[in-house]
Amino acid sequence: MSDRFFLAEPPTGSHGVLRDDEARHCTRVLRAKVGDTIRVFDGHGSEWPASITAVGRDTVDVALGEPLPAGASSRVPLTLAVALPKGDRQKWLVEKLTELGTARLVPLVTERGVAEATDAARVRLKRGVIEACKQCGRNTLMEIAAPATLQELAARHPAAVRLVAHPGGTSLGDQRRTSSGQAITEIVAAVGPEGGFTEEEVAQAVAAGFELVSLGPDILRIETAAIALAAWVTLAPTRS
Amino acid sequence: MSDRFFLAEPPTGSHGVLRDDEARHCTRVLRAKVGDTIRVFDGHGSEWPASITAVGRDTVDVALGEPLPAGASSRVPLTLAVALPKGDRQKWLVEKLTELGTARLVPLVTERGVAEATDAARVRLKRGVIEACKQCGRNTLMEIAAPATLQELAARHPAAVRLVAHPGGTSLGDQRRTSSGQAITEIVAAVGPEGGFTEEEVAQAVAAGFELVSLGPDILRIETAAIALAAWVTLAPTRS
Repeated sequence: MSDRFFLAEPPTGSHGVLRDDEARHCTRVLRAKVGDTIRVFDGHGSEWPASITAVGRDTVDVALGEPLPAGASSRVPLTLAVALPKGDRQKWLVEKLTELGTARLVPLVTERGVAEATDAARVRLKRGVIEACKQCGRNTLMEIAAPATLQELAARHPAAVRLVAHPGGTSLGDQRRTSSGQAITEIVAAVGPEGGFTEEEVAQAVAAGFELVSLGPDILRIETAAIALAAWVTLAPTRS
Repeated sequence: MSDRFFLAEPPTGSHGVLRDDEARHCTRVLRAKVGDTIRVFDGHGSEWPASITAVGRDTVDVALGEPLPAGASSRVPLTLAVALPKGDRQKWLVEKLTELGTARLVPLVTERGVAEATDAARVRLKRGVIEACKQCGRNTLMEIAAPATLQELAARHPAAVRLVAHPGGTSLGDQRRTSSGQAITEIVAAVGPEGGFTEEEVAQAVAAGFELVSLGPDILRIETAAIALAAWVTLAPTRS
């Protein structure tokens, strides 16, 4: 999988260009040369075998072959809204959520949050997504969405099953199905900051249609709770 | 939760002693003094409020109060056997599995494994378990078991539901229940090294009663697969 590269711009016909980090990774780290065969993906689900046709200072030109067959995903799309932890924990969070097939990460804006999702931070997060995709074989990038409060999140995803991790909530169980037993189409799950949500935030979440769910008796770190929710949603079969 | 300390030796009556790392953490990092109140846990499920009665160079004497009430766990005990990754990934693995309530971690011996579970490594892993327990409120240590091959693992846990993460295996689903629909009593799940299991190892695993299970279409890193399995087992309700 180390021969996979991200194509930031849509290809023109069968011609694609790797730029910046991707070009440098290809030529300087892996020492690829004209004529070498790699694989490229566009972050929207497509992947191609590609032959290197030219190497520039910060660009690599490739000729694409026939698109590789895409696997259909049977996963319920999961949006995870997380009060971002700092440093390495943030980096890990993004890597693991990407590997586990999470569709979208929203930096959750809360009273007690510690890490601000500036534009620069979101660029760094996206870079982490690309790195993880290259490694794990995923061809659709996890979206790094604009920051949102719980209420804004509910407004963005009015039809989704909405969950908030909170001590004393109900156990995770059949929230992946509607009350009539039908498969649901989208899940939004929120994880608060280390100090927890304020009472007012919890009340607002309930008013906005979020169900409070418990992740067990112990206190999970932010990234552990988020990764556990991702595993719960994306690894379990959607039984009809 | 930062005022929790691990009592490596059983208390004598109401007298307990913190030693080494725990004593230093208490007095040098947190600057606790005689008369201060902390909480201590023994790693076997018990926790007490405790008052510091004496501070030595590498010891802290405490007087224990009445044991705090223990929460009953309804989780199916999970043994995770993992071909250990190296460095930070190993540290993370232990932290997350401890938080998620995994009962036991077994260093899995495989053909292509990279990290050897020496006695020194196991001492370091146990230190990671204690740190995570202090932080997350767990009072029973995750056991760091002796290394084992898949076959040895089956021999150690003859009555357990045994799973191996392997591409092309069946989806995770009702493995938490027996074929007669009853709740099962123990799960053993194994995660192989980055290069995967050899064909011979897979054949041996199947012969030893392991079911091959798939964790989705993408290639999960070792620690991601292990954490996802832990979340799947320990967060889901055991429905009868």
